[in-house]
Amino acid sequence: MNILPYSRKAHYYETDQMGVIHHANYIRWFEEARIHFLEQIGFPYERVEKMGITLAVLDLSCEYKAPVIFGDTVHIYTELKTCSHSKMTICYSITDAATEELRTIGETQHFFSRREDARPTSLKRAIPELYDLFCSLIGSR
Amino acid sequence: MNILPYSRKAHYYETDQMGVIHHANYIRWFEEARIHFLEQIGFPYERVEKMGITLAVLDLSCEYKAPVIFGDTVHIYTELKTCSHSKMTICYSITDAATEELRTIGETQHFFSRREDARPTSLKRAIPELYDLFCSLIGSR
Amino acid sequence: MNILPYSRKAHYYETDQMGVIHHANYIRWFEEARIHFLEQIGFPYERVEKMGITLAVLDLSCEYKAPVIFGDTVHIYTELKTCSHSKMTICYSITDAATEELRTIGETQHFFSRREDARPTSLKRAIPELYDLFCSLIGSR
Amino acid sequence: MNILPYSRKAHYYETDQMGVIHHANYIRWFEEARIHFLEQIGFPYERVEKMGITLAVLDLSCEYKAPVIFGDTVHIYTELKTCSHSKMTICYSITDAATEELRTIGETQHFFSRREDARPTSLKRAIPELYDLFCSLIGSR
Repeated sequence: MNILPYSRKAHYYETDQMGVIHHANYIRWFEEARIHFLEQIGFPYERVEKMGITLAVLDLSCEYKAPVIFGDTVHIYTELKTCSHSKMTICYSITDAATEELRTIGETQHFFSRREDARPTSLKRAIPELYDLFCSLIGSR
Repeated sequence: MNILPYSRKAHYYETDQMGVIHHANYIRWFEEARIHFLEQIGFPYERVEKMGITLAVLDLSCEYKAPVIFGDTVHIYTELKTCSHSKMTICYSITDAATEELRTIGETQHFFSRREDARPTSLKRAIPELYDLFCSLIGSR
Repeated sequence: MNILPYSRKAHYYETDQMGVIHHANYIRWFEEARIHFLEQIGFPYERVEKMGITLAVLDLSCEYKAPVIFGDTVHIYTELKTCSHSKMTICYSITDAATEELRTIGETQHFFSRREDARPTSLKRAIPELYDLFCSLIGSR
Repeated sequence: MNILPYSRKAHYYETDQMGVIHHANYIRWFEEARIHFLEQIGFPYERVEKMGITLAVLDLSCEYKAPVIFGDTVHIYTELKTCSHSKMTICYSITDAATEELRTIGETQHFFSRREDARPTSLKRAIPELYDLFCSLIGSR
């Protein structure tokens, strides 16, 4: 499956007084890209949540290569890196849409949890078709 | 009852590239001050929500007099202006903590709604002691 | 000139524990729509700022008709309501993109200020072609 | 030197529809704690910036142990882990203020850059007294 990058403009309210996009916003952009990824593979996050599962964030990292400024359009590429019964890892690359120069890279690790009580659960048991889909997508870009 | 102003510092991530606090953040500061107000009158918002009621925002306005910059400490004064069975209005003044010069004024109107289904409800019937408390505080500063 | 509405999805991180988009985010959405409006009329905000002028927010109001939830796509319609040498007013209507049902309306008033010192200035004198463009657009949707 | 933890309440607008503080906000809390740390050691960030230097974020990581909910007060402990001429690393632990149970840990790496052109610079050369202060604080809590 060919996953298209998520495209978005940097908003004015996302800048800070250094004149660049504030570093905390990229974590939110990763979430937008992750939700776009789920949409593209035909399993929107709304549906995952309705089936009682959340992809709770376990940890994350982010590396800033070059700033994004107001008015820039970026591409955010996502890649599903690993998936087990209990966890998954997604990688992100943010590039300038015009030049494809790298701006930021990052990674988020998630555990599958039950929406009702936030307890860890097995995705393979809870939503087997999504687990199989994730496994088939590992390494796809 | 003497309501103390809510005091807080302006954060770096709240600035924008004009070098001032971005105007949307004041709406969040009003919420912080509103929650501080409820705490002070002995009825924290956590308790209101646990009793099944939310103070949903119906409308708001905000007037910007002078900018706040990173590192400034502000005082936010709240005043309960009106309260009926179904609605209430709160006014806010934001001043510089050092000089007490006015920075921003605003107002939010809320309707009392049931948490379970977001339907409007009568506060007088749902939480009579809070309704009476609000009525007794109209105009207090 | 036919101004197209600005279209955007509601993000997960914009929700709050009531399960709806937090009310402060709409003020940010108005800004996104305003910047989209300037782009459409051929005068991007980046260019306005480069010419030394900012559209500083003087006051705003917002009225919440019905909530937006995660995953909804909204249309934001902007209308330039008034423009003088020193100020302008923009109105916004947010509708559900699928049904066009009204969600929120709002208004922002701006004064034209010099970027270097934040002092009020005359747009007619500073950027006459933008002033004329604004005047020609009053009431267009 | 005894560095006091930074204390703050979790705000309503920081929650998401899972009913917990959204994970991106912790990155902002790290910044608040970092700025509080600089204040405590007698070198507020306003002063660092006025001297022409910014502590630009190079990379960060964050590990979520347990959620924080609306109304919780947290303590954020900072520790300056490493400092060289060009870079520094700060570690953070977020605990519940009532129980001191761990909620989140994280780390940010910064490079010293010139405010005027965002170029990397030597802190030892630019602000030697701050460089010496940082070195003396490595490992202090």
